[in-house]
Amino acid sequence: MSHKRHRKFNKRPALQPQLGKKTDTLRIIPLGGLEEVGRNMTVLEYKHDIIIIDMGLQFPEEDMPGIDYIIPNISYLRGKEKFVKGVIITHGHYDHIGAIPHLIPRLGRPPIFGTPLTLGIIAKRQEDYKNGGGRLDLHAVDNETKLRLGVFEVEFFGVSHNIPGSLGVIVNTPVGLVVHTGDFKLDLQPSGDTPADIAKIARLNEQNVLVMLADSTNAPQPGHQFTEQEIMLNLEDVFSKTPGRLIIGTFASLLGRIQQIIQLAEKYGRHIVIDGYSMKTNVEIAQQLGYMKIKPGTLIGFEDMRRFPSQKLVILCTGAQGEGRAVLMRLANREHKRARIEKGDTIIFSSSVVPGNERSVQRLVDTLYREGAEVINYKMMDIHAGGHAKQEDLKLMLKLVNPQYLIPVEGNHSFLRQHAKVAIQTGFDPKKIFIADNGQIIEFTKQGGRITNKRVPSEYVMVDGLGVGDVSSVVLRDRQQLAADGMIVIIATIEGKTGTLVGQPDIISRGFVYMKSSKRLIDETQAKVKEILKDHDPESSLNDTYIKNKIRDDLGQFLFQKTERRPMILPVVIVV
Amino acid sequence: MSHKRHRKFNKRPALQPQLGKKTDTLRIIPLGGLEEVGRNMTVLEYKHDIIIIDMGLQFPEEDMPGIDYIIPNISYLRGKEKFVKGVIITHGHYDHIGAIPHLIPRLGRPPIFGTPLTLGIIAKRQEDYKNGGGRLDLHAVDNETKLRLGVFEVEFFGVSHNIPGSLGVIVNTPVGLVVHTGDFKLDLQPSGDTPADIAKIARLNEQNVLVMLADSTNAPQPGHQFTEQEIMLNLEDVFSKTPGRLIIGTFASLLGRIQQIIQLAEKYGRHIVIDGYSMKTNVEIAQQLGYMKIKPGTLIGFEDMRRFPSQKLVILCTGAQGEGRAVLMRLANREHKRARIEKGDTIIFSSSVVPGNERSVQRLVDTLYREGAEVINYKMMDIHAGGHAKQEDLKLMLKLVNPQYLIPVEGNHSFLRQHAKVAIQTGFDPKKIFIADNGQIIEFTKQGGRITNKRVPSEYVMVDGLGVGDVSSVVLRDRQQLAADGMIVIIATIEGKTGTLVGQPDIISRGFVYMKSSKRLIDETQAKVKEILKDHDPESSLNDTYIKNKIRDDLGQFLFQKTERRPMILPVVIVV
Repeated sequence: MSHKRHRKFNKRPALQPQLGKKTDTLRIIPLGGLEEVGRNMTVLEYKHDIIIIDMGLQFPEEDMPGIDYIIPNISYLRGKEKFVKGVIITHGHYDHIGAIPHLIPRLGRPPIFGTPLTLGIIAKRQEDYKNGGGRLDLHAVDNETKLRLGVFEVEFFGVSHNIPGSLGVIVNTPVGLVVHTGDFKLDLQPSGDTPADIAKIARLNEQNVLVMLADSTNAPQPGHQFTEQEIMLNLEDVFSKTPGRLIIGTFASLLGRIQQIIQLAEKYGRHIVIDGYSMKTNVEIAQQLGYMKIKPGTLIGFEDMRRFPSQKLVILCTGAQGEGRAVLMRLANREHKRARIEKGDTIIFSSSVVPGNERSVQRLVDTLYREGAEVINYKMMDIHAGGHAKQEDLKLMLKLVNPQYLIPVEGNHSFLRQHAKVAIQTGFDPKKIFIADNGQIIEFTKQGGRITNKRVPSEYVMVDGLGVGDVSSVVLRDRQQLAADGMIVIIATIEGKTGTLVGQPDIISRGFVYMKSSKRLIDETQAKVKEILKDHDPESSLNDTYIKNKIRDDLGQFLFQKTERRPMILPVVIVV
Repeated sequence: MSHKRHRKFNKRPALQPQLGKKTDTLRIIPLGGLEEVGRNMTVLEYKHDIIIIDMGLQFPEEDMPGIDYIIPNISYLRGKEKFVKGVIITHGHYDHIGAIPHLIPRLGRPPIFGTPLTLGIIAKRQEDYKNGGGRLDLHAVDNETKLRLGVFEVEFFGVSHNIPGSLGVIVNTPVGLVVHTGDFKLDLQPSGDTPADIAKIARLNEQNVLVMLADSTNAPQPGHQFTEQEIMLNLEDVFSKTPGRLIIGTFASLLGRIQQIIQLAEKYGRHIVIDGYSMKTNVEIAQQLGYMKIKPGTLIGFEDMRRFPSQKLVILCTGAQGEGRAVLMRLANREHKRARIEKGDTIIFSSSVVPGNERSVQRLVDTLYREGAEVINYKMMDIHAGGHAKQEDLKLMLKLVNPQYLIPVEGNHSFLRQHAKVAIQTGFDPKKIFIADNGQIIEFTKQGGRITNKRVPSEYVMVDGLGVGDVSSVVLRDRQQLAADGMIVIIATIEGKTGTLVGQPDIISRGFVYMKSSKRLIDETQAKVKEILKDHDPESSLNDTYIKNKIRDDLGQFLFQKTERRPMILPVVIVV
């Protein structure tokens, strides 16, 4: 079948190459996945052929109130849409697929390649996507598949991650072999997945790989990543010792972990209720596609729970990050319709805490204790293995693939630097490691590679509700000010000819002070506004902007003196 | 001198005890320091005598935008001000002293007791306090001091913490001995401080202590806390191996750590620039009071730096939590007037990251790497010891003091529970461990103790600028909504008689969409407002509230459809 596809994609318009050396250059452009974790996306461009590896989203930072997430900036591809021969998705996590509904339509809907599970998750998400992303041109691949996308020949190798169906990518380009590891660890005993395709990776060793782009997510961490097998043993320890009901929270996308828990439940005769939309659908997809084995009768619904004693039950759910509306939080807060925490429950947090969530997780744990539950988390025992290679794994991958050049990707800038340091420890030539920023162009010719100072646009593109990129820094700054000190609207009606104030200025305050209990301040503010409007000179009396600025400035000072707060001041001047 | 003080405080009005059993009860009321870390404050009340231990602040949570901090709720003490015989401060950290400027004036300015360093920090803070907290009645104490405060006899014992001059408190009450450990660890080789007063603590063993209130901050952590000595060795390792300039970030209040760094600098012939207002003043105070030894010539100013090669320099500063305006961040961002990061600098983060700061710290580390620096943090080696007892230390303290009852304090609810579990492991009677919430009354009589269901007010009192407690949940909810989706003001002028709209409705939007680039949406919104105002029935035409609600509801729906955002809608209707 790969051959059918081969021909098919060859049919896409192959334009006449422009002359000149420049066009004999392979450009590798990271549009995301550097500087901070998330929104992974890499562009490979040679003459008039472009392929894209991954198309992910990034979750917003604390100083971006109201933002849903951030997607890669593809301004660089504007006008080049028809050159995009294909989009390769390494695995089904949101930081690798999340931008597809937004960006694919803008790129002329190029074909998307991934393993069946990856495509299943992509398709499901497209279905759920609120403004309907439209059709996707999805094509399943595996370790055997060979694709031709324009000048590029693409192959794949299986890697272990914490979701099955994860791939590394081998791209044969006119200037040499480019390898992208995707998110990986080298787990020889993974869960619910085939082990990393070490043999195929090792064969790269003699193929004179030009450059490897490699996962840096855990580059700061020494040693080897835990194997899922070690986790399995620790989880089994809990299963074998826990008398009461087990409630296990983890990520909906951690399908490997979920498979382990199902196996253990079956071994210890426990029945499982799975709750949380995303987790349920992921399990369904994985099961349909044969990535997940579940014995009939293992999964039950809440309504069946009363049929079994508590030591025969597991609730497997989302919310281990303390998310406000997720299942675990609703269970803890007694807001869940079908179940609640009971004395004697043991809650397992089988996922590490995403930075920024520590306090909400702590609050959740407190609530669970108040409800009489015991809590076990990954700090107390190793019940969470990351899906990413640590330093010793990175060294091994580097030795196996043995590339001429290394481009650390997927990680904060300091992670990339630590990845480089690790490589240098193995004797890798520092001059052949390129640490780029998002949007920075890396060029390869037959003569070799260099990191340029050329940059394509890579500013944040923020998604808020239906708006993509319409929340500007101005809007964000306003949100931050409104959040910190609220706002106050001053409505002053002014008599046209004389420019004198008519009646009392109206005042509305939100998020600044509680008006009901701040009558005095409001009165003083009214008086102040009158005073401001009184003593301004008649000429400018009808100069709207002048009056507004005056109110804004004088009142701002006044209110800061009184309160040490700086509410946003919105003067409304009505001339009658 | 303790005797003078003895007499003096005896002079305070000793009122006639009311009759009845109830008044023979000692009440212990935690007003803070439970449920979450911070704003520590405990009230001891017997008949008409009250003493308070600690008066701290707590830093706000993510969902409290604009709030500076939270202080204990003292509504319970209203009307009882004159019974408050004294306030005892265990040590000089903000979560134990921070509420003093706010609360002391409201309690009739009772005398405050603490070690000279604690009082020095309190006095300095009072001096800096923006609305001038007024005079404080400060009295120095030490391990030798005996106080009589109403019916209470108070003594102290030294404990190790990460600030010198930390005390535990022994209160002799009519119903028995009450011991409060304060923040403590049992460090026999502390830095810049006398070791914990183990002998005096051990002597409590035979004194039939009624109840111990003990620090739970590190109760979830197994084993013993590092000693400052271990940290010293690790820091020395860095000092001995680092060729270039050392830049060390830590907490301004971590005076123990600061003393170590000064010693090491002197040993390795490095000169130190200390930067950061709070750190500078703390060091000055500690030095003046003899808590800190610094050789002449060790401390230099930025202007002297050029006189020394980089391997002879240390910059010791604040900002290890990634705080936006602190020294380290300004150095990294090249916003510091006197210095900047140079290639070859080694930055040490010698403080653990406070939950919630992880991402800002990561961003800071990235920036430092970009500037060409090396970064060492506490995750890479043990260069930060907590100031709090871990599980084995807690067991030891319990065995030493040997109280009848235990009240775990200072920690999230789950920490208190884990503290209890640790005690039970040592054979402590579970029925004699009281885990309270803030405001929950614990009572002791000669017959014994019990935790009641009676609660005194303990709701958050939030400080925002000059406002104390004036930011209500309403204001906070508004701030959250404004932060998430911004706001939009609709100004409609209506003709009095007919109730018809005059001219175009005006629209101001902030934090919702960027008006300049959303002209179409704004136009549609105007049209929508016209439509809303057209088809409402004439009777209600002048019913202000009716029209406003209609605009709020209909427009809210309309905008959500268009944007999936829910901006706050503020209709302004002017009738002419």
